[in-house]
Amino acid sequence: MKIGLVGLGKMGLNLGKNLMDHKHEVVAFDLNTDAVAEMKSYGAQGASGLQELVQALPVPRIVWIMVPHSAVDTVIGQITPLLSQGDIVIEAGNSHYKESIRRYNQLKEKGIHFMDAGTSGGMEGARHGACYMVGGDPEAWRVVEPIFRDTAVDQGYLYAGKAGSGHYLKMVHNGIEYGMMAAIGEGFEVLEKSGFDFDYEQVARVWNHGSVIRSWLMDLTERAFSKDAKLDEIKGVMHSSGEGKWTVEEAMDLQTATPVIAMSLLMRYRSLDHDTFTGKVVAALRNEFGGHAVEKSTVTV
Amino acid sequence: MKIGLVGLGKMGLNLGKNLMDHKHEVVAFDLNTDAVAEMKSYGAQGASGLQELVQALPVPRIVWIMVPHSAVDTVIGQITPLLSQGDIVIEAGNSHYKESIRRYNQLKEKGIHFMDAGTSGGMEGARHGACYMVGGDPEAWRVVEPIFRDTAVDQGYLYAGKAGSGHYLKMVHNGIEYGMMAAIGEGFEVLEKSGFDFDYEQVARVWNHGSVIRSWLMDLTERAFSKDAKLDEIKGVMHSSGEGKWTVEEAMDLQTATPVIAMSLLMRYRSLDHDTFTGKVVAALRNEFGGHAVEKSTVTV
Repeated sequence: MKIGLVGLGKMGLNLGKNLMDHKHEVVAFDLNTDAVAEMKSYGAQGASGLQELVQALPVPRIVWIMVPHSAVDTVIGQITPLLSQGDIVIEAGNSHYKESIRRYNQLKEKGIHFMDAGTSGGMEGARHGACYMVGGDPEAWRVVEPIFRDTAVDQGYLYAGKAGSGHYLKMVHNGIEYGMMAAIGEGFEVLEKSGFDFDYEQVARVWNHGSVIRSWLMDLTERAFSKDAKLDEIKGVMHSSGEGKWTVEEAMDLQTATPVIAMSLLMRYRSLDHDTFTGKVVAALRNEFGGHAVEKSTVTV
Repeated sequence: MKIGLVGLGKMGLNLGKNLMDHKHEVVAFDLNTDAVAEMKSYGAQGASGLQELVQALPVPRIVWIMVPHSAVDTVIGQITPLLSQGDIVIEAGNSHYKESIRRYNQLKEKGIHFMDAGTSGGMEGARHGACYMVGGDPEAWRVVEPIFRDTAVDQGYLYAGKAGSGHYLKMVHNGIEYGMMAAIGEGFEVLEKSGFDFDYEQVARVWNHGSVIRSWLMDLTERAFSKDAKLDEIKGVMHSSGEGKWTVEEAMDLQTATPVIAMSLLMRYRSLDHDTFTGKVVAALRNEFGGHAVEKSTVTV
């Protein structure tokens, strides 16, 4: 098939090459002309703008948008007037599912199909086989399914149902990921504090072969320890990019108990702070009622 | 090698067959004579008691104990007088690492090597390739390593270090397992409460192919949903058998923050109760200060 690809960052470039490896034609656009040049050198057709990209596509057009979530509405706003009824827009970034439902309804007014595709597997996945969860109209799905099938790992794609369901699954996937990663991290924390002298690379290796917790994350754990035996080079600050928070917010809205995922999110936030005001208050209270010693702050604010 | 195998339950029987498939000789004993007969029919030498088992082994003897943890001390107490200096006892059950250190010291007084082997992978693992974490004397490890190598999956065994280290790793492995399982459970809980109509078997399948959370546990999740699409047949009561609790207790002793693993354990306990006294107290307080309605208990205690 011939696909318009908007956004040639790390994910988009890899996906573009993956598409071309599977005999699809790609018309590629990005504001970064170097990225467009790279896709062209791989055999893609370059476009200097959205209009040129749209004009190069046969109808019904298929446009795959893979841009940072802050840019999604801009791209959709610019490309929508160029598209026609029956065209299909795939938005494969990390958008909130409610945004995807809004965009679906917005494009539906013009007869354009909007599909929300949650994508997992990172850059390696985009290049050699990703994992997709896709929501949107079933009639549009029937058209675009081959694209997902070709660029996913075997069995690595799912038509999840109505608009928003793809990004919903991706959101919850990431929530689970937060919890799994925190459990792994905490386990190694216990090992590190124990009196034993474990080789963490070897521990991760054995846990990844035949144990109940074998997983891609444990494989990545082994890889990380193989590069830096005690992770001395890495500070234990755990940033987050939104989907764990969205999962917890969704759980709150549904009045659903997800304490493990919520705790993994809160501990990420805790890791952002050197010291905490909570700690100051509790230490002050222990001092007030029991005369317990406090540690003097050495931080100059 | 020729190995004395004490304990022919689900794990022991499968391990015995696994050993024999790898050309080891097995002398098998269990109080359950049917299990001994099954091992004999598989080609093992049966023993009617520990004395017969010990006498059938060449020195240094290798005795693999695979009995419920409540029976470990009894078996060790009975077999120790029959063993000689230089013999090796492998205890491959789910014992607390402190018990294993105690047993190591107890047997060391008689010159007998005690090895603590944490075993993961369940019955399938015992039969076709387990995951082992082993602690004890390095000179004993050099003798028994082939047994572990042969019955583990490729790369699925680790000599973890001094006495207790094997069961320590197994304990923490299970703590991580609790957290990972809770995160997966909570994720599906959100899906179930959402307004979407997901096919959970298909969700688990796609999450297990190419995603960041692909894992043996996700594979088992798919398997469970394939048998019972909404798990209607299973009540959400989460029992536990000790090692998650031990991990949290160890973390407490080390003053180490493991809130995600701890929360996964506490939520297992929560699942054991229909109603909670916590809930009654909080509902009563809301009623007392705010006149908020309480739900009447319909349970007759």
